[in-house]
Amino acid sequence: MEKNRYQRGLDKMMEYTITDNKEISTHLKISEELGDLAPGLENYIIEFAYGDIYMREGLTNQQRAMITISSLATLGTEPQLELHINTALTAGVKPREIVETVMHLIPYTGFPRVLNALKVIKKVFAQRNVEIKELELQAH
Amino acid sequence: MEKNRYQRGLDKMMEYTITDNKEISTHLKISEELGDLAPGLENYIIEFAYGDIYMREGLTNQQRAMITISSLATLGTEPQLELHINTALTAGVKPREIVETVMHLIPYTGFPRVLNALKVIKKVFAQRNVEIKELELQAH
Amino acid sequence: MEKNRYQRGLDKMMEYTITDNKEISTHLKISEELGDLAPGLENYIIEFAYGDIYMREGLTNQQRAMITISSLATLGTEPQLELHINTALTAGVKPREIVETVMHLIPYTGFPRVLNALKVIKKVFAQRNVEIKELELQAH
Amino acid sequence: MEKNRYQRGLDKMMEYTITDNKEISTHLKISEELGDLAPGLENYIIEFAYGDIYMREGLTNQQRAMITISSLATLGTEPQLELHINTALTAGVKPREIVETVMHLIPYTGFPRVLNALKVIKKVFAQRNVEIKELELQAH
Amino acid sequence: MEKNRYQRGLDKMMEYTITDNKEISTHLKISEELGDLAPGLENYIIEFAYGDIYMREGLTNQQRAMITISSLATLGTEPQLELHINTALTAGVKPREIVETVMHLIPYTGFPRVLNALKVIKKVFAQRNVEIKELELQAH
Amino acid sequence: MEKNRYQRGLDKMMEYTITDNKEISTHLKISEELGDLAPGLENYIIEFAYGDIYMREGLTNQQRAMITISSLATLGTEPQLELHINTALTAGVKPREIVETVMHLIPYTGFPRVLNALKVIKKVFAQRNVEIKELELQAH
Repeated sequence: MEKNRYQRGLDKMMEYTITDNKEISTHLKISEELGDLAPGLENYIIEFAYGDIYMREGLTNQQRAMITISSLATLGTEPQLELHINTALTAGVKPREIVETVMHLIPYTGFPRVLNALKVIKKVFAQRNVEIKELELQAH
Repeated sequence: MEKNRYQRGLDKMMEYTITDNKEISTHLKISEELGDLAPGLENYIIEFAYGDIYMREGLTNQQRAMITISSLATLGTEPQLELHINTALTAGVKPREIVETVMHLIPYTGFPRVLNALKVIKKVFAQRNVEIKELELQAH
Repeated sequence: MEKNRYQRGLDKMMEYTITDNKEISTHLKISEELGDLAPGLENYIIEFAYGDIYMREGLTNQQRAMITISSLATLGTEPQLELHINTALTAGVKPREIVETVMHLIPYTGFPRVLNALKVIKKVFAQRNVEIKELELQAH
Repeated sequence: MEKNRYQRGLDKMMEYTITDNKEISTHLKISEELGDLAPGLENYIIEFAYGDIYMREGLTNQQRAMITISSLATLGTEPQLELHINTALTAGVKPREIVETVMHLIPYTGFPRVLNALKVIKKVFAQRNVEIKELELQAH
Repeated sequence: MEKNRYQRGLDKMMEYTITDNKEISTHLKISEELGDLAPGLENYIIEFAYGDIYMREGLTNQQRAMITISSLATLGTEPQLELHINTALTAGVKPREIVETVMHLIPYTGFPRVLNALKVIKKVFAQRNVEIKELELQAH
Repeated sequence: MEKNRYQRGLDKMMEYTITDNKEISTHLKISEELGDLAPGLENYIIEFAYGDIYMREGLTNQQRAMITISSLATLGTEPQLELHINTALTAGVKPREIVETVMHLIPYTGFPRVLNALKVIKKVFAQRNVEIKELELQAH
């Protein structure tokens, strides 16, 4: 039933959105902002992206968040990258893993895409009070 | 010392290359093929990509293999995608995870890049006798 | 109901696939080829791409075929471009309009993407016996 | 004669620029802004893009505007997308068709490029007082 | 006068095409191959690309050939890259400079685009009997 | 020794950075900004990009600066383009050559990437008091 598909997508999306009872990411702002312009868009994101794709077995939420970041950094679409650094943190990807994911792309995308992605990471970490000091201590 | 950097890169690369005492991937063919044309290229790949980037802490070999595939599928550079589906398998990423990694990109890259990446996966799985039947059984 | 979504997608897809009682395009080959590797893929294409997106009001089949070609030529994903030149012809886009769509992109994508797209058009037109002579006569 | 090519390009461009005796789009600002830096640029745009490419037979102005938007959304070049949403409106493409053109790209470019394009559409529609309410009523 | 623009473009193109009284590159094959499909295409390439753009003052033929290669390697459009490695050689760019141009892009495009471009260079050098041995001796 | 590699990279980078005893470009700001987030990044840029790649023989500093601009304009990564228009000026590339390099890309990238790159050039020229008037006088 179509409604179930929406519901399961919404539930899945919330796993990437709610942390400590607070909604942090901004997926739902998209529908508020663009919903009247493009009716159906919110449904596609929730039903198709989350209800179909994210619901597939075989990868953990953390793995899905990491490969999403990798793809968005390669494309250079920064607003979505900002959103999905948030969803990655909420889904339990460690800050250090996010940084390393992007650093790992240097041989594949070159420095420019990586530098721009790191600036977005820095912004999100600051907003969410992720301690960069701690990151440093873990570094080799 | 520069030599150590090369050696540690080579050791790291071998973790993605040797399986059951057989070398399966084709990183070293690149230097054979292009080494006389572009001296230094092999060194950059081994010392920089593997010795510096792949050696960083914070991600497992499996994670690095998955985000590499994600980036290459997004770029659409198929020869390298073929190589790194091999390195992913060798590094222990499960076939199903490789397929899911690429399927997950549909909302971010659209269908075309994903379809082309799946054809490359199919080719590599056939070459390495990865059982697609088993994959099916695991599917929901 | 989910089944209806699949059915309406399939019906819509057929409007781009069947001509003179012959199936010409190759959408269904994708599921044969990749279906066992990536279960669900065929469903996403039929339900989401055709059942949701192509079913939307506001554009004709011909218009959708033309903007699909425009996007695929810009991305440079040639296998999909070949498929959608076929769907465009089947949907009633005139050969001349297909060529003009790609020619129009020169200022936006540069010559290389356009030249490669034109080669694909030439191949499809030959396969389907589209008369290029006639095209010439229509030219200014 | 070269002058005629410029003139016919300018005339063609005006079909995408003047509405109700008001010039709305910003093609001519480009030459003001960049003309002293890059002499010849304005001529290439008017003579080549408009005088040669846009002047070709086989597509209507509305069709050309739609495939331009499709290409620019795929590339992600937002300043030009903003301009050509304006030219599309001026050329008589209906607001709903512009939204649908971009929505149609989801399967080809993924969500990120489409979301960013929709934000640009929203901005242009607000500047030109396009009624989004009306759009909603037309939606299925 | 339009005819002169075509002629000056053709003359300019020949500077990149004729070497030792032999035509080596394949610009003119494009018009043979695609001319009946896309009337006007040859003119745009000769009049606009060569007659307008390549005719501009401020860069030498060698410089234009090098930045063309740089752009095409970044885009990954290999048929055009093959053509312009030929035009670069004909225009007097040294084989070593062509290799270095592509090697220089590693930090900007990542390894994949560069590896694919080097394979194209290798193919063209073999066709034109460019001595790779000599290249090696010049290397540091 | 690794330290020498860093030092030679830094020395090479300074050839693109210091002009009239003033540091103008912003390479070093990157390490300040992103160094705590991504330890090692500064080293990769200085040791690998400058110490290995820029140190290669076969191209002059001016040639390397020009092909860097060509690649970055094609990618559309504007923050890095801004930086490397600065490094190009510092390395002795003439303002007119920078403009022409970007203008030359029109047939390869289309107008949009070129227009956006020209805006970045205009901004950098204004910051560094490059006389556009003079540019005009040199123009044909």
